[in-house]
Amino acid sequence: MSGSTMTVKNIIFSVLLIFIPISLAAEYLHWGELAVFITAGLAILPLAAWMGTATEEIALVVGPSLGGLLNATFGNATELIIALVALRAGVVNVVKASLTGSIIGNLLLVMGFSMLLGGLRYKEQVFQPTIARLNASTMNLAVIAMLLPTAVDYTSAGIDEPEMQKLSVVVAIALIVIYLLTLFFSMKTHSYLYDLSAEEESETESHKPNAWLWTGVLLTVTVLVAVESELLVGALEEATKQLGLTELFTGIIVLPIIGNAAEHATAVVVAVKNKMDLSVSVAMGSSLQIALFVAPVLVIAGWFMHQPMDLNFNPFELVAVAVAVLIANSVSSDGRSNWLEGSLLLATYIVIGAAFFFHPPI
Amino acid sequence: MSGSTMTVKNIIFSVLLIFIPISLAAEYLHWGELAVFITAGLAILPLAAWMGTATEEIALVVGPSLGGLLNATFGNATELIIALVALRAGVVNVVKASLTGSIIGNLLLVMGFSMLLGGLRYKEQVFQPTIARLNASTMNLAVIAMLLPTAVDYTSAGIDEPEMQKLSVVVAIALIVIYLLTLFFSMKTHSYLYDLSAEEESETESHKPNAWLWTGVLLTVTVLVAVESELLVGALEEATKQLGLTELFTGIIVLPIIGNAAEHATAVVVAVKNKMDLSVSVAMGSSLQIALFVAPVLVIAGWFMHQPMDLNFNPFELVAVAVAVLIANSVSSDGRSNWLEGSLLLATYIVIGAAFFFHPPI
Amino acid sequence: MSGSTMTVKNIIFSVLLIFIPISLAAEYLHWGELAVFITAGLAILPLAAWMGTATEEIALVVGPSLGGLLNATFGNATELIIALVALRAGVVNVVKASLTGSIIGNLLLVMGFSMLLGGLRYKEQVFQPTIARLNASTMNLAVIAMLLPTAVDYTSAGIDEPEMQKLSVVVAIALIVIYLLTLFFSMKTHSYLYDLSAEEESETESHKPNAWLWTGVLLTVTVLVAVESELLVGALEEATKQLGLTELFTGIIVLPIIGNAAEHATAVVVAVKNKMDLSVSVAMGSSLQIALFVAPVLVIAGWFMHQPMDLNFNPFELVAVAVAVLIANSVSSDGRSNWLEGSLLLATYIVIGAAFFFHPPI
Repeated sequence: MSGSTMTVKNIIFSVLLIFIPISLAAEYLHWGELAVFITAGLAILPLAAWMGTATEEIALVVGPSLGGLLNATFGNATELIIALVALRAGVVNVVKASLTGSIIGNLLLVMGFSMLLGGLRYKEQVFQPTIARLNASTMNLAVIAMLLPTAVDYTSAGIDEPEMQKLSVVVAIALIVIYLLTLFFSMKTHSYLYDLSAEEESETESHKPNAWLWTGVLLTVTVLVAVESELLVGALEEATKQLGLTELFTGIIVLPIIGNAAEHATAVVVAVKNKMDLSVSVAMGSSLQIALFVAPVLVIAGWFMHQPMDLNFNPFELVAVAVAVLIANSVSSDGRSNWLEGSLLLATYIVIGAAFFFHPPI
Repeated sequence: MSGSTMTVKNIIFSVLLIFIPISLAAEYLHWGELAVFITAGLAILPLAAWMGTATEEIALVVGPSLGGLLNATFGNATELIIALVALRAGVVNVVKASLTGSIIGNLLLVMGFSMLLGGLRYKEQVFQPTIARLNASTMNLAVIAMLLPTAVDYTSAGIDEPEMQKLSVVVAIALIVIYLLTLFFSMKTHSYLYDLSAEEESETESHKPNAWLWTGVLLTVTVLVAVESELLVGALEEATKQLGLTELFTGIIVLPIIGNAAEHATAVVVAVKNKMDLSVSVAMGSSLQIALFVAPVLVIAGWFMHQPMDLNFNPFELVAVAVAVLIANSVSSDGRSNWLEGSLLLATYIVIGAAFFFHPPI
Repeated sequence: MSGSTMTVKNIIFSVLLIFIPISLAAEYLHWGELAVFITAGLAILPLAAWMGTATEEIALVVGPSLGGLLNATFGNATELIIALVALRAGVVNVVKASLTGSIIGNLLLVMGFSMLLGGLRYKEQVFQPTIARLNASTMNLAVIAMLLPTAVDYTSAGIDEPEMQKLSVVVAIALIVIYLLTLFFSMKTHSYLYDLSAEEESETESHKPNAWLWTGVLLTVTVLVAVESELLVGALEEATKQLGLTELFTGIIVLPIIGNAAEHATAVVVAVKNKMDLSVSVAMGSSLQIALFVAPVLVIAGWFMHQPMDLNFNPFELVAVAVAVLIANSVSSDGRSNWLEGSLLLATYIVIGAAFFFHPPI
């Protein structure tokens, strides 16, 4: 990404950096939990974006396939850091909800906006159907595996927590293995399938960024995200209560919007430039990484932290993720998109959001 | 549709008009609720058909896209009128069941018979896969949205009726917005996708009908449908009890067969003429309109009538609709059909019907 | 299948025939239930394989379409015999679990290994998408129908056993009708769709086997399978208790692995030879036959044996089968496969297996 769009995006995000000192002031001058929650949330937005920019610049040096990998990993680094901080603080249900919320948000909100805004400019946009279909299959497996423990609990008289944790760890290991296999597939044995979009990307890029500089930026930003996450999580319980939101709604809707802002901006910007291949792969790839990498890492981290982090979700989360995957696959599997398909994804997001808003706490 | 097929169809349906006076006699001479129910049901069949014919004739004057819209709307006008009458009479569960039953009936019974009978004459029939896929995605969204409130109730300890109604109204509004967007898409921004079938249709038509005459017919028929619906709904509870049927079965199977007779006849007749594009779009379009237009209108009407009309269905209705959409999409998404696919749809309808027959009342 | 691969496979399986006398010794010399269970299980493996070989040889004489039919039927004959023996012994839940387990095993384990091992040798393998899609639709119907009674029970306050049996018999009859229709479709009205793979097969075959000899082998093997099934089923309850497995796990995972060994070997061998059409049709066809033929035959047999054999499964079986069909269809519907898709199927099998292992008995 280069030129004027990047500049505009970077200016907007740079201005938001002001919320880093503001959020720290809010915390230490005791402006109230709600102020801390909102300012820390706003501070994370530009940090996640800078994380993305730094990753992209490093990606230009290390080449397109490793770059693609870096891109998706550090896009989700924000979410992983927030989730680890929240896990240590013991708000396990919020962590779990943020996982399903991230998948739903990437598939419906990010991909929906990309297809809608791209579709307003181009009558029909195309992307590689082979990869879209393979992503769909992998996504099916990922969410199935992630949600099977919930189904075990829901269809039996109930399963003991230690057994549920063991099952969750087994599933987590299977997910990580699949994650490694998909990387091996896309970067080694079948990398030619992914070449087209790489080519497309490199066309518009010509400068040679300074890898050391950007690695420094990446590390600084990572530390700052961790600091702001502490503020965000610390204020979370009290702030959401003041806003009249349930724990479930906060985890599903609010946290993922903060965590996914970077992917969101990237996916929409490239969609409007008609690089739909890249746009879909950011949204799809991000969801896949939540399910295949972030979720299992958190389960295993929870095991070591002695937090009851398992893959036993609220049954309605299971419904919502299944629905999001179904509609995202249904829309993307033919390798074509238009504004109506984007609207369908957004409408699904809205009704799911409304459903979570009205879902009574159990 | 013109010539001999139309004549035969019209003769059959015209003969059934005799049931209008008979049903009125049954009501006022007190022949019993069962007699009223059956004769009013038979009287509605030709009225729905005439509504269809009048709409088609008006459609010829106003052009193919507006005509297609008129066609689908007034095909479902019969169902909307029956449902509104039933809603005012307070049999809310029957109204809700008739919505899911209409979707199931259109996707499985109407499309099944079309593909079976068309397939007996042609080895393979084709229709536009782009539109079929887009319809599939829209249908997925529509039933997901329509059924999410049920899932919220089923996966929680239960949700209060006022909250459920609020959630249902939010979903209803989202559905109507999507409905308007699909109309805008098919008639404005992407109308070229739908041109092929319009062309095909107009080929066989050459006369210029009298729009005023047919508008008069349409209005008269609408009034008569409303009258007969009153008789039908008034006799419903007593009659179904005498027949040994549950409320659920009546709503799911019996009412939609009466309400869908017109689409049924049209879809099958054009399928046998190998206009599969039109046939599938009648069946699919009718289901879509139930979910995107009739259901939300009823929710909003219920809100004004102070009837507890929400989108909280029996969970087995959710299963049945999901199953119907899954199999209909699976059969139609490749844009080809044969007699076996028609049989699969019909077999699905039969097993779902049997399941509802044996489903114990809650 | 001819030449060296067949020889190797036959040598391996012939050696296992030694377990026929060993299992009989274990039974009559009272070596313990566990010994009987394991040796009878091992003895069934080569018998199922010989059943397959005999069927293939007879198939060469009777022609490709009737041959394909014979092939699939006698591949599942092993499972049908084990199930009938188990049904007579009254272990109805194990019989039901072995049905869902067979479908899951064929779709995930057999197809997974075929795609993985075939994919290690060929970058991309292709098979007929038209048939794959039709199989997918039929499979959707089959599992829907098979699982609807469970959904009726689960979504109501519960249904009486006699009503459940009646519903199951109605569904069973519908399934058998669909089974006959699919045979009529593939062998009569649309046999040309299936010609390609038949041609491919016949290329490598040249000898003319002795039909009488192989019919004799088939009959002998059938009797031996029945004998060993008696030993297996007799020892089942005690042996699985000693192994610490639940009834559900044994039925879902252990029995189908024994019963499906023949299809397994065939599908993998032909996949490695790049005859993916045949490989997929063995795995898909076998699952279809379990749902459309074996399951309904058992329901009707249970009716006559006065065993409460119905189609009311454990709800988690419903989840597992739905998941298996979804992922198998998602992977196969484009008519292409690679090693990653095979791995996805196997990973799904592993997480489902783990879920059943941890599923608490109800």
